[in-house]
Amino acid sequence: MSNFFDWQEHIGSNEEKFYKTMLWQGEYVMLGMNCLEPGQVQKTHAHAGADKFYFVLEGCGLFTIGDEERKAEKGVLIIAPSNVLHGVKNVGGTRLSLLIAIAPGIK
Amino acid sequence: MSNFFDWQEHIGSNEEKFYKTMLWQGEYVMLGMNCLEPGQVQKTHAHAGADKFYFVLEGCGLFTIGDEERKAEKGVLIIAPSNVLHGVKNVGGTRLSLLIAIAPGIK
Repeated sequence: MSNFFDWQEHIGSNEEKFYKTMLWQGEYVMLGMNCLEPGQVQKTHAHAGADKFYFVLEGCGLFTIGDEERKAEKGVLIIAPSNVLHGVKNVGGTRLSLLIAIAPGIK
Repeated sequence: MSNFFDWQEHIGSNEEKFYKTMLWQGEYVMLGMNCLEPGQVQKTHAHAGADKFYFVLEGCGLFTIGDEERKAEKGVLIIAPSNVLHGVKNVGGTRLSLLIAIAPGIK
């Protein structure tokens, strides 16, 4: 299994629901990508006992983290600490691609 | 403390040694940035009991992960699993900026 991943080779889309793919699962962290087409939503949810973050690779998302709602574009890291509600909507006109990590990964 | 970080606001340089800054420390993960000027090196080392990864934000690095040595540029995610030796040298002509995460963070 390689230790090198170019995110552009892991883009995908899913009409039914946003696209998810896992890149790597270790003992302490899971890495993946989420791709949301315009208007697609990841509903607000929380992870008990795991810190999560998103990193915006392309596009524009409206992120909810706890009580905070904020737009973020390419180059922004967004933290969802353990137990904090979080979600995102693609509010741009193009694909929203996110690198995501959950530590520890959900097994 | 904010949950949103634009990496371009956290760039730095250090002539003595490469530049390190922490962005966020949670219970399960630590996030930060490393910026290496041309020629600067992060010596090979390993983290016992922690998975680490780098994500290349700009520039070009020669990464060592275990027995593998490979160049990576913007948009590449590089995994250093727990206990695996890893390091990087800036082999480009411009700053090498890396988002890094260590899970769990080193306390």
